[in-house]
Amino acid sequence: MSRTLTQKEVFLLKSLQTRHGRKRSDRCLCEGARCCGELLKSCPDLVELIVCRDDFAIESSAAEIVRVPGHQMAKLSAAETPPGILIVARRPPATVPELPSDPFALVLDCISDPGNFGTIIRTAKAAGLQEIWYTDGSADPFGDKVIRSAMAAQFTMKLWNMSDLTAVKNSLSQFGYKNFYRTDPHQGDSCFELPELFERSAVIIGSEAHGASDLKGAIPVTIPMPGNFESLNAAQAATIFIFEYVRRQCVTNVIQ
Amino acid sequence: MSRTLTQKEVFLLKSLQTRHGRKRSDRCLCEGARCCGELLKSCPDLVELIVCRDDFAIESSAAEIVRVPGHQMAKLSAAETPPGILIVARRPPATVPELPSDPFALVLDCISDPGNFGTIIRTAKAAGLQEIWYTDGSADPFGDKVIRSAMAAQFTMKLWNMSDLTAVKNSLSQFGYKNFYRTDPHQGDSCFELPELFERSAVIIGSEAHGASDLKGAIPVTIPMPGNFESLNAAQAATIFIFEYVRRQCVTNVIQ
Repeated sequence: MSRTLTQKEVFLLKSLQTRHGRKRSDRCLCEGARCCGELLKSCPDLVELIVCRDDFAIESSAAEIVRVPGHQMAKLSAAETPPGILIVARRPPATVPELPSDPFALVLDCISDPGNFGTIIRTAKAAGLQEIWYTDGSADPFGDKVIRSAMAAQFTMKLWNMSDLTAVKNSLSQFGYKNFYRTDPHQGDSCFELPELFERSAVIIGSEAHGASDLKGAIPVTIPMPGNFESLNAAQAATIFIFEYVRRQCVTNVIQ
Repeated sequence: MSRTLTQKEVFLLKSLQTRHGRKRSDRCLCEGARCCGELLKSCPDLVELIVCRDDFAIESSAAEIVRVPGHQMAKLSAAETPPGILIVARRPPATVPELPSDPFALVLDCISDPGNFGTIIRTAKAAGLQEIWYTDGSADPFGDKVIRSAMAAQFTMKLWNMSDLTAVKNSLSQFGYKNFYRTDPHQGDSCFELPELFERSAVIIGSEAHGASDLKGAIPVTIPMPGNFESLNAAQAATIFIFEYVRRQCVTNVIQ
């Protein structure tokens, strides 16, 4: 027997679209067919409630499915085009860093734009990375826009939050990571030529407006830009580094 | 002597935020300090009117500067955070393809998301490319969101619009471009290993939801994804191809 959403559920869905509402909750919101599909596939145990438009085709035993009319769906979503499906999920609990498994540590410093932060998570996941370090001042990795941009990849990665780059460095140093490369739009060796770039090292991506914060002993590294056009979007810069890592693995035949 | 905006100017600014309004106009809208700064630097002759918040610091002889109070600025912009400056500019006239100067042709097929389309233009510009081919079904390259994402790079590139991939192929073939590579998330040789990928060839980027359209004789090429996670965002895929081209140029010492 089908039912409608309770007032409490409607309130929760709306509050999860606000930063304040998310802070007070251990739940998060996933929107759209592809994004929800990934979440249902990868982490069905985190799914609490599935809400979909009455004509949306879905089968899932992960959680209860509540069907709503299209006009209600439009009110429940912040997206310009209302999605056919929404999921309320539990946030994976925050963890403290343990021995990383990635050969290099991807560090995001104050990436506050939710779209960029999510896109970087998605790209890192596609590249086979398992961990991301990020500093205070970054977007909330379980905000609705970040989840949408990441296609729910954050649910299956280890995301480690630290206060600042010094804290990241202290933590990574304990695990034997030696070199700290700070991406810089204007100075440093080329990312395509540094042989040790991904060997027990950290690659720090900063926001495009301010660059990465200062970090004592960090080595600048740059992306060659023959077009000489201001800087790249932060997510594009991260993508170039991440897939330079993939390319080197391919070339040395780690990946076939 | 300072003046206020005329009703006609306010109407124009608002109409340029809509697809319909842009279609009827040969003007376009550029928003934000960095984006407008690029436009003023690269194409001052296209600038018609500069509108800025009363406390915004600017000096320019490109066009008349009209200062408005903050609350009016918020109404003139579609952006969540109202910018300090807006520019009304003439669109560069559409041109028909002439002999391309880029060694490979970057072709965008139905990239309808304005943010992705703009980010790809910006990235191509940073890489030193001068031309982009795009098919019907793509976003309007002079829409406000596309200009913002591209940091106004479209004003200094040649953007060639064709009805579909067959028309692009016919045109490029006339200029001696031989191979047509269609990016594919699942099949084809690796983009890191095809030696002729950028030699008088076309690289076709499709939308992430649908991939590139079918094109007779096109060769599939793929980005290795060790993480085995659905597909990459279209702008990330384009970035990986564009900077693989830059990398190869660096390695062969074309760029120092």
